[in-house]
Amino acid sequence: MINVSNGVTEAKGFLASGVKCEIKETGTDFALIYSKEPAVIAGVFTTNVFKAASVKYNKEIINKNETVNAVTINSGNANACTGVQGDIDVLTSCNKTGDILGIDGDKVLMCSTGIIGQFLPMEKILNGIKMSINDLSANGGIAASEAIMTTDTFPKRYSQKININGKEVTIGGMCKGAGMICPNMATTLCFVTTDVKINQSLLQKSLNFGIQTSFNSLTVDGDMSTNDTCLVLANGMSNCDEILEGSKEYEVFEAGLAEVLKELAKQIAKDGEGATKYVEIKTINAKSYIDARNISLTVANSPLVKTAIFGEDPNWGRILCAAGRANAEIDPTKTSLYFGDVKIVENGEPVKISPKDAREPMLKKELTIIIDLGIGDFEATAFTCDFSYEYVKINAEYHT
Amino acid sequence: MINVSNGVTEAKGFLASGVKCEIKETGTDFALIYSKEPAVIAGVFTTNVFKAASVKYNKEIINKNETVNAVTINSGNANACTGVQGDIDVLTSCNKTGDILGIDGDKVLMCSTGIIGQFLPMEKILNGIKMSINDLSANGGIAASEAIMTTDTFPKRYSQKININGKEVTIGGMCKGAGMICPNMATTLCFVTTDVKINQSLLQKSLNFGIQTSFNSLTVDGDMSTNDTCLVLANGMSNCDEILEGSKEYEVFEAGLAEVLKELAKQIAKDGEGATKYVEIKTINAKSYIDARNISLTVANSPLVKTAIFGEDPNWGRILCAAGRANAEIDPTKTSLYFGDVKIVENGEPVKISPKDAREPMLKKELTIIIDLGIGDFEATAFTCDFSYEYVKINAEYHT
Repeated sequence: MINVSNGVTEAKGFLASGVKCEIKETGTDFALIYSKEPAVIAGVFTTNVFKAASVKYNKEIINKNETVNAVTINSGNANACTGVQGDIDVLTSCNKTGDILGIDGDKVLMCSTGIIGQFLPMEKILNGIKMSINDLSANGGIAASEAIMTTDTFPKRYSQKININGKEVTIGGMCKGAGMICPNMATTLCFVTTDVKINQSLLQKSLNFGIQTSFNSLTVDGDMSTNDTCLVLANGMSNCDEILEGSKEYEVFEAGLAEVLKELAKQIAKDGEGATKYVEIKTINAKSYIDARNISLTVANSPLVKTAIFGEDPNWGRILCAAGRANAEIDPTKTSLYFGDVKIVENGEPVKISPKDAREPMLKKELTIIIDLGIGDFEATAFTCDFSYEYVKINAEYHT
Repeated sequence: MINVSNGVTEAKGFLASGVKCEIKETGTDFALIYSKEPAVIAGVFTTNVFKAASVKYNKEIINKNETVNAVTINSGNANACTGVQGDIDVLTSCNKTGDILGIDGDKVLMCSTGIIGQFLPMEKILNGIKMSINDLSANGGIAASEAIMTTDTFPKRYSQKININGKEVTIGGMCKGAGMICPNMATTLCFVTTDVKINQSLLQKSLNFGIQTSFNSLTVDGDMSTNDTCLVLANGMSNCDEILEGSKEYEVFEAGLAEVLKELAKQIAKDGEGATKYVEIKTINAKSYIDARNISLTVANSPLVKTAIFGEDPNWGRILCAAGRANAEIDPTKTSLYFGDVKIVENGEPVKISPKDAREPMLKKELTIIIDLGIGDFEATAFTCDFSYEYVKINAEYHT
């Protein structure tokens, strides 16, 4: 996958780095995002009862502070189900980061991803903190996006420029997959930086909006992790006017942020563990958005649908069957189904079509399945991938 | 799997058969259960919106009639998403069966399992009806249990005798798996016959009770089918006194029926598509039964847990992680976890144990995982299996 964006270092005033402190056996595994000016911070987090130590810590900091300057991220160890020792380790790490950077410890956040139930190797972490601070650079977004990978096969970055009151501002981000991926929120780690000027509650509002159609519409395997986190940092360094609630500028920013989040979420689906195909499940003409989203996500989570897609088998019965258990309003006699442009089911009954024609869209690397409920005006799309031998292999062999 | 029971022909007055009418390419594919006397009928059915034609028909008949005499079952074709033609085909089949048996058409039920979205091959079905009536016999429960199989690798039967007021009565049954298996109800087809005397509402009540701890606690892949059906037929031919509501005899019968249903459900988990291990997920000391059941089923449905079990990897973090998203009350600091007898987690933190000792219970063919919430008095067990390459293979290659 060709990716020309620098991710979190596209926006003005942000530096980043990614280094190897040997938590993982191979590759870099410690990243740092740093803003030259205090950055307004917003976040959404896993709703799992077993929250990682860093998730609990970050939520506290965001409730207490309007701004932070730095976020460290380690891969290879989730620091989840690690009790009081886990909490202490996060505090120690953030204080150490603050010390070296010359800022307060509570201006630093920390995120972790990897194996659950092992204590952080603190000597390595402290080493990672030092090295990552030394390596900070204006194009470090690339190294950072590589250091947060676990079973990902490619780094994930995206950015775009938008126009706020005649001034160009930037929204850029990075994220990682690639298993234990399902709403809500957010699944996985995602970091977005922007140089707009905005207050904390409005930044949080825009994140809450954008997360619904991006990370909360994404599933690889239906498993929500203990560490899911999405953070947005806004440092105001573009010198554009402050974005105010109810303004046209807010609408532009909200749409821009949602777009960046969606493009990042799509990259995770494309890199789902063992995935051979990228799939969008689009439910249209539903009675409500919730109905449309429930159906799209239920179909996207069905192992029978996902294995059929892997087998390039136009087994539409499995798709309707999964839709039918989604707790949504459906009239079977008004439901139609398409593979790409090819109509397969019309008003609940199969269309007369040759098996070869039905299979044609399944052979491509990217597939859109459209479920037309024919009873309303709402739609929702879920982003997912197929389910292959390789998924089983990766997850049967992933250590402990 | 050695199975000494005759299944549906263990109880007095029931005949059955299983014949080959060539809906499937190999094996028998048409079964008939027949009661010499009208049998009181109870049933539970899929809650999927896309109900098979036969499900809609059977529900109507059971609402209208207290008794039936016969049930036909075909495998290889689900007759689901087949519109009006599907409804007509069920009616034609049941009337034909009634004609030959010399009873009214509405004294016959029909069940189907197999591929969704294709019309029933009616010539073959009508041939199957004739052959199966000719083959009816007092030990036909064995042939019937074989004829209802699809991707099952062994037929599933179970029966037991219980004592009602000093008289021995029998409850016997058969069922089929082996994919698209998840509550509620029931997943899959299950047929139980008994020679007790009981009225319809009480028989339905006992079935509603037994289904919760059996088929509604079972999952292979989280996919609920369009055809799920569990029927119980009671023909009264044991000549025991009628079982009355609120009596001690009712309690004995209810427990006996629940036991038969649970043993049948376990056989489905043992034969889950591609399964190499049978797994029970037991949640204990929960605040409520619903909490315990939600956790057990959420863990049992997690692809990450199931692939770890296939890989014989004691990856307990995935288990707690799945439990943590089950919408149940959990105090992480009071939660403990066991693989069989081996304690792995105590009060939310890992026990010091060698990887070899932790792995020991995973190497067996049958595994019990116990999640002790430590906050209440309720428990629930889910029946499931692991998730292997073979599951993907079976479902990627299963045709349309």
